[in-house]
Amino acid sequence: MRVAIVGAGALGLYYGAMLQRSGIDAHFLLRRDFEAISQRGLQVQSIDGDFHLARVKGYRSSEEIGAADLVLVGLKTFANGHLVPLIRPLLHEKTAILTLQNGLGNEDLLAEAFGRQRVLGGIAFLCSNRGKPGFVHHLGEGRIRLGEFSCGLTARSQRLAAMFSNAGVPCDAVEDLCRARWEKLVWNIPFNGLSALLNKDVTELLTFPPTRQLIRELMLEVIAGGNSQGLSAEIDGPQFSAQLIDFSDQMNHYRPSMQIDRAEGRPLELDSIYAIPLQRAARAGVTMPRVEMLYQLLRSGEVYSDN
Amino acid sequence: MRVAIVGAGALGLYYGAMLQRSGIDAHFLLRRDFEAISQRGLQVQSIDGDFHLARVKGYRSSEEIGAADLVLVGLKTFANGHLVPLIRPLLHEKTAILTLQNGLGNEDLLAEAFGRQRVLGGIAFLCSNRGKPGFVHHLGEGRIRLGEFSCGLTARSQRLAAMFSNAGVPCDAVEDLCRARWEKLVWNIPFNGLSALLNKDVTELLTFPPTRQLIRELMLEVIAGGNSQGLSAEIDGPQFSAQLIDFSDQMNHYRPSMQIDRAEGRPLELDSIYAIPLQRAARAGVTMPRVEMLYQLLRSGEVYSDN
Repeated sequence: MRVAIVGAGALGLYYGAMLQRSGIDAHFLLRRDFEAISQRGLQVQSIDGDFHLARVKGYRSSEEIGAADLVLVGLKTFANGHLVPLIRPLLHEKTAILTLQNGLGNEDLLAEAFGRQRVLGGIAFLCSNRGKPGFVHHLGEGRIRLGEFSCGLTARSQRLAAMFSNAGVPCDAVEDLCRARWEKLVWNIPFNGLSALLNKDVTELLTFPPTRQLIRELMLEVIAGGNSQGLSAEIDGPQFSAQLIDFSDQMNHYRPSMQIDRAEGRPLELDSIYAIPLQRAARAGVTMPRVEMLYQLLRSGEVYSDN
Repeated sequence: MRVAIVGAGALGLYYGAMLQRSGIDAHFLLRRDFEAISQRGLQVQSIDGDFHLARVKGYRSSEEIGAADLVLVGLKTFANGHLVPLIRPLLHEKTAILTLQNGLGNEDLLAEAFGRQRVLGGIAFLCSNRGKPGFVHHLGEGRIRLGEFSCGLTARSQRLAAMFSNAGVPCDAVEDLCRARWEKLVWNIPFNGLSALLNKDVTELLTFPPTRQLIRELMLEVIAGGNSQGLSAEIDGPQFSAQLIDFSDQMNHYRPSMQIDRAEGRPLELDSIYAIPLQRAARAGVTMPRVEMLYQLLRSGEVYSDN
């Protein structure tokens, strides 16, 4: 299987490296890390054990990569305006596109451009950060839940899940991608936004009772939003929020990517994580006032506002 | 009339100076500015014209001031734990206490310590900042609305209003102090909190559509909270919020005191402006979710949290 990785940041580099190590023919579209990786390969510093890939196929353009069997998309969603032209040169008739991007709207964008039958989505539960060029840090987790944009379990989604599992990345194929996406938003919406707004990590946010309470309130709003979307089964608000908070209590001062992006002056993924979920909930008649307020507050700190 | 001014910050210094200039016998309890004012007097830099008081009666303790006919309280509410011992030495049998502090709970504290018949409250619509020691900057407005804690128009409240008016400070005596306090909160809750949280001034907050919308939503919540308090007349939500926003649009990059306090690392007046209003509204069955979220977010940035 020839895999092209588009958006080789902390997520794309880590999963691409894991796939290559397992024998998959991986091709990385690189920008910042092109020189370092071309010269010295890719170093993965992982809680599961460090490893080094001496020879990595890095490219500066999709045209150089050419057609692949699978396109793995890890681009930050604020760069989605560039996504379609980056992917077009990578497609043959049967190429599947798996977006591991955050939030909602990414599959829709790809489906509109390339046809919905090509598109799968995956939710990555991954704590990773970029290091200096040529380095990626895997701090925890890594599990992926992936599914067809058109829903249902298919041979293809199960094959891709097996590919990741074989590569040491726990992966499940899910029937209801929409539900999985909303479940992930229940984590992303409070933790990403609050960490960026307040410049506090997950542990700091959970240790202080007022923000811990706010996290729970935000989660319950998101769950209500998700449950308005015709999911295959409702998400249980009290139970699921408690479970996610317990899980997050185990994270040792993890800094969500949005905290790092804000601290380093990069734009935030506000459309896919806030604007589109708010729109979809509102369309179903559900308001999420605290989520909306968080979105308003985060937008006010954006240097490059496109609104 | 012998007036003692307790809490001579930007507000206390300005109103005290105006009263003294009009011939009132003013006595200032000073801390930071004691040396400068004792040596060089008090300089008021005002949009209505600068003036200088060469001789100002400044003191380091209330005991040195002794009994006064009126105590004017301008202390920051986060220092309310010190208020009662500061005021006790200033009282004779008929001394009135007028608190011009922000938010709710200040009159209650004074009434409990000294008897409710002594207590009046005033809402100051004043844009002022402290300058270097011995300087106070009057940037705009200055109007006061004052009233008896026990409600009703009295000869005393009208006499005090006349005293301020004679001193060049527009002042009305109001029958319903509670309503006036909630009306002021409709401004303070959004503008103070958002300016501190986002480090943006009034004009910046109003210019950006998402925060402008949030300000309106916060105002409507506060108005609903106020209208649950048995006011003499309801506050009209859409009309009053629109009027306050129009008014604030005229402020030229005004930095609310809470923005300055946060930027300079001082504690914020969160109890009187957020916690007590939230409690009172909740007791009347009204939730203010956005106000509560703003309070949660502001608390998380407090260095000296007492919670």
